Amino acid sequence: MVKWLEGKGPESDIVVSSRIRLARNLEDINFPQMITKEAAESSTQRIKDAILSSNSVLTREFEFKRLREISELDRNVLVEKHLISHTLLERPQIGSFLLSKDEKVTIMINEEDHIRMQVLLPGLRLEEGWDLCSKIDDVLEERLKYAFDEKLGYLTSCPTNVGTGMRASVMVHLPALVLTGTINKVLQAVTQIGLTVRGLYGEGTNAMGNLFQISNQITLGESEEKIIEKLKNVVLQIINKERKAREKLLNSNKVQIEDKVYRSLGILKSARIISSKEAMKLLSNVKMGIDMGIIDEVDKEEINKLMITVQPANIQKRAMKELTQFERDIKRAELIREKL
Amino acid sequence: MVKWLEGKGPESDIVVSSRIRLARNLEDINFPQMITKEAAESSTQRIKDAILSSNSVLTREFEFKRLREISELDRNVLVEKHLISHTLLERPQIGSFLLSKDEKVTIMINEEDHIRMQVLLPGLRLEEGWDLCSKIDDVLEERLKYAFDEKLGYLTSCPTNVGTGMRASVMVHLPALVLTGTINKVLQAVTQIGLTVRGLYGEGTNAMGNLFQISNQITLGESEEKIIEKLKNVVLQIINKERKAREKLLNSNKVQIEDKVYRSLGILKSARIISSKEAMKLLSNVKMGIDMGIIDEVDKEEINKLMITVQPANIQKRAMKELTQFERDIKRAELIREKL
Repeated sequence: MVKWLEGKGPESDIVVSSRIRLARNLEDINFPQMITKEAAESSTQRIKDAILSSNSVLTREFEFKRLREISELDRNVLVEKHLISHTLLERPQIGSFLLSKDEKVTIMINEEDHIRMQVLLPGLRLEEGWDLCSKIDDVLEERLKYAFDEKLGYLTSCPTNVGTGMRASVMVHLPALVLTGTINKVLQAVTQIGLTVRGLYGEGTNAMGNLFQISNQITLGESEEKIIEKLKNVVLQIINKERKAREKLLNSNKVQIEDKVYRSLGILKSARIISSKEAMKLLSNVKMGIDMGIIDEVDKEEINKLMITVQPANIQKRAMKELTQFERDIKRAELIREKL
Repeated sequence: MVKWLEGKGPESDIVVSSRIRLARNLEDINFPQMITKEAAESSTQRIKDAILSSNSVLTREFEFKRLREISELDRNVLVEKHLISHTLLERPQIGSFLLSKDEKVTIMINEEDHIRMQVLLPGLRLEEGWDLCSKIDDVLEERLKYAFDEKLGYLTSCPTNVGTGMRASVMVHLPALVLTGTINKVLQAVTQIGLTVRGLYGEGTNAMGNLFQISNQITLGESEEKIIEKLKNVVLQIINKERKAREKLLNSNKVQIEDKVYRSLGILKSARIISSKEAMKLLSNVKMGIDMGIIDEVDKEEINKLMITVQPANIQKRAMKELTQFERDIKRAELIREKL
């Protein structure tokens, strides 16, 4: 159900996924905030055609979808799967997107910018993501004229994206840093060197399930490669700290950690009602147990997928109808028992 | 490991056990509080002989034990199993007891009174308990001269036992009355009609695992049969209230109850560290689940036994050594996983 999460990436004991996102705009059309309906349609057609009529192998298996032709539930499912952004939902009349068959690439149209393309890969694969994203950018640029300034670089709707228009981010799972109480110090240090930390669903969301998104803040004045290198180095340091914290826990509190992991698995396998918040907490503990070598009877890919499929819209999509919170909590428990 | 709990008694969905206890004293020896060492030895020998040299089938398989010959751990194990009283431990130099092979009958010597005999049966079996206890009393009275007053009845060390010297008590499991918040009203009513409510381990202990001991307060001015009839009637009313509360819960909160029961079982089967307090709470939930027909994969006798064998001294006895609290919590979790 979450195709892009399939397969194991590097450093997957800590890194869930890597994402590269590029913001681009057409030179001759207002930014989406100021766009007319006609201009929005024109940008949509031009971007869509640039992909669908290209001969590149990279863009062969894309599907085009307009937001207004998709139910609200389906839109939210896509957001929960990280395939489209929450911001795109704010413009349902003009928003659309192209999605690759393997779900690893999305090209959103008329989000905050005319074009927001993203590559999403499991594990720590920033360079690979950038390479693919850059090539898709080339395909688009062959046919489209971007808003570009010789001095500033790519022009974007929000000044924070001007320059490379790139946001590179890595989703890391840091349960041991949370348990040992050192997470805040680590995240503060990350912020001080110009990176941003967010929760599972971006800006303003809390760190559910001990998942943190680390991304670059600055898009101007540095090359994409430099930005990625810097981010990767910081992530490698965080990975190192998390691994040391796990080792420390195993040395000093082995039984307590085992207790936490097995209890979490026991509750997940038994509960008849479970909130997404509790589910995320318990799934995080089980994931930690797998990654620390405490349990091996559970498939980690399944846990990673559940972290997305237990979200409210996904639960409703599975039930094929709208559900109250109480009904969702029951269906969520059913799904988890079935998968584990 | 807890023989007396074996076999299913009447009303066993709510009543764990019934107990009849008689207090008796020898006419010519001071009460144990004021007794000399020599007199204590004399009372011990006379009571022991009265049982062991009797021809009655009832007293054939008794074993005699002196407290001072038993380790402190073993003494506490016996208390936790309800086979001897906590009060007996206060006089380790003079206290002893006779225990029947099936563990259903104990005759304590030099507890608060010279003789404290008890019959312990699973389920609601007060009359049967009284019948057996009375017969053992007859065996003793054949050979011993009791302190007895024509007007008052049997004389005892504490005035609250004078008269019949009998305490009849029933251990009931009332999770639904606790869950629906009506337990206090019920227990208040019980107290107002002259009965006493205590926790699992008697006076001053809280109601662990939703277990309550209901017993008669008054021993004077009423016949044993009358006291038992009154107690039984009240217990039957409480049983009725608990059954109605369970029905109500099943009608209005079925999924929530199922969730509570299955989660409790899941945690019991998974935990690596567990306190006796938490274990009792979870075992109580599972017991409720069995008695309400929610689960049937667990043997209730096993749950009833665990409610005793998870207690601290029993855990240490099983490990065959003294343990710290942390070590007990680990061994307790092991025991529970093994049994479930």
